[in-house]
Amino acid sequence: MAAVKESWVASANDPASDFSIHNLPYGVFRHQEKTRIGIAIGDQILDLRACAEHGLLLPLPQETIAACRADLLNPLMSFGPTAWSALRHQITALLDAGQPRRDSVEPHLIPMREAAMQLPAQIGDYTDFYASIHHATRVGLLFRPENPLLPNYKYVPIGYHGRASSIVISGENIHRPWGQIKSPTAASPAFGPTQSLDYELEVGIFVGQGNRLGQSIPIAEAEQHIFGLSLMNDWSARDIQAWEYQPLGPFLSKSFATTVSPWIVPLEALAPYRVPALARPAGDPAPLPYLSSPSSDRDSIDLTLEVYIESAQMRQNDRAPMLLSQGNLRDLYWTIAQLLTHHASNGCNLRPGDLLATGTVSGPGPGSEGCLLEKKHNPEPIRLPTGELRTFLEDGDRITFRAGAQKQGLPRIGFGECTGTILAP
Amino acid sequence: MAAVKESWVASANDPASDFSIHNLPYGVFRHQEKTRIGIAIGDQILDLRACAEHGLLLPLPQETIAACRADLLNPLMSFGPTAWSALRHQITALLDAGQPRRDSVEPHLIPMREAAMQLPAQIGDYTDFYASIHHATRVGLLFRPENPLLPNYKYVPIGYHGRASSIVISGENIHRPWGQIKSPTAASPAFGPTQSLDYELEVGIFVGQGNRLGQSIPIAEAEQHIFGLSLMNDWSARDIQAWEYQPLGPFLSKSFATTVSPWIVPLEALAPYRVPALARPAGDPAPLPYLSSPSSDRDSIDLTLEVYIESAQMRQNDRAPMLLSQGNLRDLYWTIAQLLTHHASNGCNLRPGDLLATGTVSGPGPGSEGCLLEKKHNPEPIRLPTGELRTFLEDGDRITFRAGAQKQGLPRIGFGECTGTILAP
Repeated sequence: MAAVKESWVASANDPASDFSIHNLPYGVFRHQEKTRIGIAIGDQILDLRACAEHGLLLPLPQETIAACRADLLNPLMSFGPTAWSALRHQITALLDAGQPRRDSVEPHLIPMREAAMQLPAQIGDYTDFYASIHHATRVGLLFRPENPLLPNYKYVPIGYHGRASSIVISGENIHRPWGQIKSPTAASPAFGPTQSLDYELEVGIFVGQGNRLGQSIPIAEAEQHIFGLSLMNDWSARDIQAWEYQPLGPFLSKSFATTVSPWIVPLEALAPYRVPALARPAGDPAPLPYLSSPSSDRDSIDLTLEVYIESAQMRQNDRAPMLLSQGNLRDLYWTIAQLLTHHASNGCNLRPGDLLATGTVSGPGPGSEGCLLEKKHNPEPIRLPTGELRTFLEDGDRITFRAGAQKQGLPRIGFGECTGTILAP
Repeated sequence: MAAVKESWVASANDPASDFSIHNLPYGVFRHQEKTRIGIAIGDQILDLRACAEHGLLLPLPQETIAACRADLLNPLMSFGPTAWSALRHQITALLDAGQPRRDSVEPHLIPMREAAMQLPAQIGDYTDFYASIHHATRVGLLFRPENPLLPNYKYVPIGYHGRASSIVISGENIHRPWGQIKSPTAASPAFGPTQSLDYELEVGIFVGQGNRLGQSIPIAEAEQHIFGLSLMNDWSARDIQAWEYQPLGPFLSKSFATTVSPWIVPLEALAPYRVPALARPAGDPAPLPYLSSPSSDRDSIDLTLEVYIESAQMRQNDRAPMLLSQGNLRDLYWTIAQLLTHHASNGCNLRPGDLLATGTVSGPGPGSEGCLLEKKHNPEPIRLPTGELRTFLEDGDRITFRAGAQKQGLPRIGFGECTGTILAP
């Protein structure tokens, strides 16, 4: 196990901080009308462009230094793990408690509270998967009681293309969408605001190096194409979805908004938390060879994910957000490497900055449902601390995701927040 | 009816030409290592950048002139119909047979055969619809014999998100994709090259002005957001599709390649060919109010679409391509305005350069099937002039789409070609 490092940025050494020197996630921020790449450290952002301009990245290749001066992460994403690792090594040295040049680095720290986070990359395409068998089964029970889990599920990492234009950064408000809704008792649909607005707790996977059209990505190389992970809320309108989704899948029920968290946590930061993927239950088929991992002892990540809700009334009454559910990335049926390799298996080209998402991360038991739809299996609606009841989201509700990897003797690797508030129409 | 104009570009006056002075479609081409916006005229391309640089667009606003110097159409697309119309008016004057400054325009013509066409825009998102009820019914019969046309079809313009990264320009070769295929008799799927590679004859709709996230686009304004139309081939692997598509829709069966034709025909050029949409059969529901057009006498376009096939053996034997089927845009159940308004009805933001497609354009009768899958209802496979038989596409097959609007007394508005050849693995 690597030794625990401390930073001269004091807030980064707070055990409650998401952003110790062991994390160093990438993001894009706006400060004093300039947009730049930064790295989270404690409650500060290290301005990578300023570091590049002041010679603090000099041991690195020129192209890496140039990419650090961009205002989106796409160029840096395209370089691959060797370049990412060298940059991470350099940033670690700059922020290390033992760094003698602290005085030359400190001017390039910007307090997070003064910065506005932006989308970290130009997202060319966004693809959403369906990698939790617990989610697929519980949702399937509602949409197709006679046939909840389809026969392809244990062979195909099911996914679909999502809408890239409506991806927004954490903190942006969410418009309640309108759409065609057909109640079970009505003869025909009506057009109106959704009455069953939901969140979906997901992990986003940002593509690093791409592949050329017509070429696939072997499973053993898949993670070399992953720049890092973030949190994602795939907001969903369940009534619109139920009416529109056959035969071509969800469309307007999802495309009104998707929220991503601003910080992309490098896979390298998560290395100490890698774990074997959960064993497939006896009787389940083995993955086909193109999806069979050669390194199955660390295919998954022990990453705890949490959902909090806060209603407008809770905010007025200074109530703390309420924990709605808790899951773990380990509970997925498919690994992130399998999702990426499957995506490129037909020759589809992935580009740096493309976003893949796991689909709703749900666990097997009550309290681990990654969306409200799954909670419909519960006999009672959710009761908030104010006494308000919830089946789906109401105007003013704020949903916040958090995540972290933890292990005794190591600082927590946190993901920051992925949050959004439902606007009153 | 507007008077028929002639151009001093002689090839544009050839009745067989796709590109008379009444058409003037936009494209992006590469010539002598420079990428520029151009306009097709006869067998030539008018270099818009050169026109801008030589003062030939001077009556136009500065921002329009600047957009003509770009190397993609997105800036021009974002301006809307007033700017597009003014530019078209100016180009028409420059190319008109009566133009006295012909000598100053002629140096900016480039023979099409010397140029390489490129994707005309940065396509942020690509959405494919399913607007032909004849296609939906015939395909539905194969996938769900008991339930071919689902209850939502006559209310919802069904669509799904496609893959933007794998959109290629006409002429690029197509890799036969690999994927999971499960034969009806096998217990489990196997991974291999598709055995049922298909084309889909579609019309592409390029978005001009966008809308902001959270705002919809009224149906009366929908066409103001359409820059123009092109041809599109949504290549499909039917065996992969049949196994993967439930419950979230087609994914890898489509994302390996989509071909677009290089020339975007402005809606203004198609104005003389506007026709009422076909009446809905008695008993069909009226569209919901948000999809009800106020101008139903010209909602559709009388545009003939053709599919040609040419096998490697046909090319070796100098056989002409064989007409496989013929359809018309009029045969769609949903109009292009309805597709666009539905897409934005949940507040989803469309951006300049986004691509919508109609879905396979099929007519009611035999010979108007827009893909090979639908021809499976025929008792016999297709016989090529060489005696070769086809159920699906073989390596070396070349598929070419053509389209044109025609009317007595007016020159034909052609779309050029949308073509692709299947590579041997």
